[in-house]
Amino acid sequence: MTVKHGFYYNKNHDDHLYMDETSIKQIIERLSSPPTPFVLYSLKQFSHNVSTYQHALAELAPMRTQLSYSMKANYNPHLLTILKSSRVMLTTVSGGEMQLALSSGFEPSSIIYNGNGKTDESIQMAIDTGVLLNVDSLFDLEVIFQYARKLNKIANVLIRVNPDLSDSHVHAYNTTASKTSKFGTSIDELEPLFTRIEENQDKWIRLYGFHCHLGSTISNTQVIVTCVDKLVALFDTKRFPHLRFLNIGGGLNIDYKRYANRTNEQPEEQIAIPTIEEYVQAIKTPLQPIAELVELIVEPGRSLIADACILITRVLGQKQTGSIRQLVVDASMTECIRPALYQAYHHIDTIVSSTTDEHTLYDIVGPVCESGDFLGKQRYLPKALARGDFLAIFDVGAYCSSMSSNYNMRPRPAEYALDEHEQIKVLRKRETNEDLLRTYCVD
Amino acid sequence: MTVKHGFYYNKNHDDHLYMDETSIKQIIERLSSPPTPFVLYSLKQFSHNVSTYQHALAELAPMRTQLSYSMKANYNPHLLTILKSSRVMLTTVSGGEMQLALSSGFEPSSIIYNGNGKTDESIQMAIDTGVLLNVDSLFDLEVIFQYARKLNKIANVLIRVNPDLSDSHVHAYNTTASKTSKFGTSIDELEPLFTRIEENQDKWIRLYGFHCHLGSTISNTQVIVTCVDKLVALFDTKRFPHLRFLNIGGGLNIDYKRYANRTNEQPEEQIAIPTIEEYVQAIKTPLQPIAELVELIVEPGRSLIADACILITRVLGQKQTGSIRQLVVDASMTECIRPALYQAYHHIDTIVSSTTDEHTLYDIVGPVCESGDFLGKQRYLPKALARGDFLAIFDVGAYCSSMSSNYNMRPRPAEYALDEHEQIKVLRKRETNEDLLRTYCVD
Ligand SMILES: Cc1ncc(COP(=O)(O)O)c(C=O)c1O
Ligand SMILES: Cc1ncc(COP(=O)(O)O)c(C=O)c1O
Repeated sequence: MTVKHGFYYNKNHDDHLYMDETSIKQIIERLSSPPTPFVLYSLKQFSHNVSTYQHALAELAPMRTQLSYSMKANYNPHLLTILKSSRVMLTTVSGGEMQLALSSGFEPSSIIYNGNGKTDESIQMAIDTGVLLNVDSLFDLEVIFQYARKLNKIANVLIRVNPDLSDSHVHAYNTTASKTSKFGTSIDELEPLFTRIEENQDKWIRLYGFHCHLGSTISNTQVIVTCVDKLVALFDTKRFPHLRFLNIGGGLNIDYKRYANRTNEQPEEQIAIPTIEEYVQAIKTPLQPIAELVELIVEPGRSLIADACILITRVLGQKQTGSIRQLVVDASMTECIRPALYQAYHHIDTIVSSTTDEHTLYDIVGPVCESGDFLGKQRYLPKALARGDFLAIFDVGAYCSSMSSNYNMRPRPAEYALDEHEQIKVLRKRETNEDLLRTYCVD
Repeated sequence: MTVKHGFYYNKNHDDHLYMDETSIKQIIERLSSPPTPFVLYSLKQFSHNVSTYQHALAELAPMRTQLSYSMKANYNPHLLTILKSSRVMLTTVSGGEMQLALSSGFEPSSIIYNGNGKTDESIQMAIDTGVLLNVDSLFDLEVIFQYARKLNKIANVLIRVNPDLSDSHVHAYNTTASKTSKFGTSIDELEPLFTRIEENQDKWIRLYGFHCHLGSTISNTQVIVTCVDKLVALFDTKRFPHLRFLNIGGGLNIDYKRYANRTNEQPEEQIAIPTIEEYVQAIKTPLQPIAELVELIVEPGRSLIADACILITRVLGQKQTGSIRQLVVDASMTECIRPALYQAYHHIDTIVSSTTDEHTLYDIVGPVCESGDFLGKQRYLPKALARGDFLAIFDVGAYCSSMSSNYNMRPRPAEYALDEHEQIKVLRKRETNEDLLRTYCVD
């Protein structure tokens, strides 16, 4: 692909930050003093990520493969229309997400509904429409039976397996398949589920496959290989003739620190992050035994959307507190809670990157009245930064907008994108104070 | 006060959980199968907390005192109408909060606008209307001058001081006045602000006082006493003749674990939490030197509203994962992020409390696809709990609703209250899927 996509500093040209072939500076001018912060998508980067996955998966032939986008990472409806035209499936985790997937025109058979605590209404919706259900536990299965009987329909299910595996570099909140995790059923506790399914096979239920999701921000493909090995061993098509899908979840990390050297930051312990191609290639061998029999589903969220998105913020001022130089910006934990919640790194840089200015170390903090409200600690940025200057916070496509709040009565920001003609598209309007108060009832 | 208020188990009667004089069971029946989770306020408890503060403050006479509610804890507009009729001031931390305070009919002189990163628009609004501004830093002061000149008005300000003090039991995210905190100006760096204010005194600015907020969940009154000592020393009325207010912030903790013994939980290290009366009495002596001269402002959030509110949730099921018994409920980190973000304790109990049932230890987790989604760890609750049973999560009045998100496309819950005639009032309607999608633009 020769089309420029994504975000990059055009060094040969003017050293400005570009999105696709347009500089961020130009976009800001075209938007004529937009309220900050706001979100910018490179839809070309997103499409590029989708096709990178699809091409990498095609290399697993003869195995059939399916890419499924994990909507929880970012449910902006415009993204869903792009995915639909690329024939990507959707993994949903609530009734609300399933409803949006259906109303966006996805076939029920292209939707997976997953969750450790499904409500009656959403189980009913999944069975009624034919959405694939991930059975999490015995109690989940019993409720599914109850509604299959009630609706007189067959539930199409995968079983979410807990293989007792995790990547030691992953934050505890992002690890979802260790022994005591709340998700799925341990391999040695599957038999009661198998028995119940056998008893009701082709009457109320069809077991289509197995699912596992080891967690998010995974950089170690070895744990995924071990996981695939464990899941492959479960495919007993004699006992369950409908078995057809192996869903290995998502979880691939992205290299949040790929720009870090540029700005002279402290060198840190580097964990190598596999590319999408490396990740997919890594599972080729363990999949061999079932390659002709089974269809592989991979359901990433982060690695599809995270790097397709930046948050533009304005500097409000600088202050010194003790030994710390604070750079106060108008973005905050309400738009990007990942630093506060997971001590996550997001790269932060100017939109006009000059390597000659004198730089200094800052903590980059937001205006929310809470000490957890920081966006980056100890980052090198130009000394001269002043009120009104723009900064870009990178890789906010996943788990930022979808986890955003209105804490301190902050409106959620506008979201813009460039379309294929480099025209600006509004994907989301900035919330107003009225939006924030809409559901409150005052006498 | 002999009127029953708040939440309590009526042991002599039926051992049910009561709100004021009505059992939660009855409220649920009256609401006829309300979608869960939902929020329940005891407005009587809230009013009781307000008057407890006001009575305690009156004991500081001859010193004049003012209670100011910190809106960031919970900005439900119905609470504001109650506060207005009780002549309580409001502390706001954003343009949105200030706007809601003004449109709710509060006098500008009864509103404080505080923040380390104020926007141009909100500074303009504060000066234009006459809201009291807390100056955070030198750069903040310069922007205030700029808009005072532009509007040709005088800005009424307090200075937020960082006294370099903190309570060692407080979570780092809730500590706001240690040496490297992002809030306020250190005492030894005040002189440049003083000089700039002197230069512009009565022309663009009047210095009305000093402000400090040490952080939230403070249980140690000694640090507040030390803080008051430091602030009192700053009152140089010769230099700044308008000096009139000492605002000592909020921060008093509540006893989140007060019910913990009831349910047989593991005994834990207990930190004694001062009552509102003890907290106010503790600062009486250090205030003596300025008692006749200065008006005290206290601006609590948590200790006014936290215990006036519970979250009602339904059990979805039980499962065993390794050594852990999981109780899956339909409430989550989207309604109550405090356990995930601060490892905070919220008491959780049944609404019909029986002491005879066999109990067991559970992790209480929500349905959000994330391991940080837990509400309580290792809690004793009845073994027999099953899908559909109701539980109450206590003390969710502060920093729960105001920090809530729509992660996993979860609608924010309905909020109900009992009025003085024990009639149910709807304070907030549950969000619909349409509400969640309202600001998105789809072609
Ligand atoms: C079941 C399931 N599948 C896929 C994902 C996507 O994970 P990631 O965004 O890390 O690729 C998640 C998110 O945690 C998930 O819960
Ligand atoms: C300036 C200010 N005042 C008062 C408060 C209220 O604190 P609390 O809710 O702990 O009483 C806060 C909250 O952190 C605050 O930032």
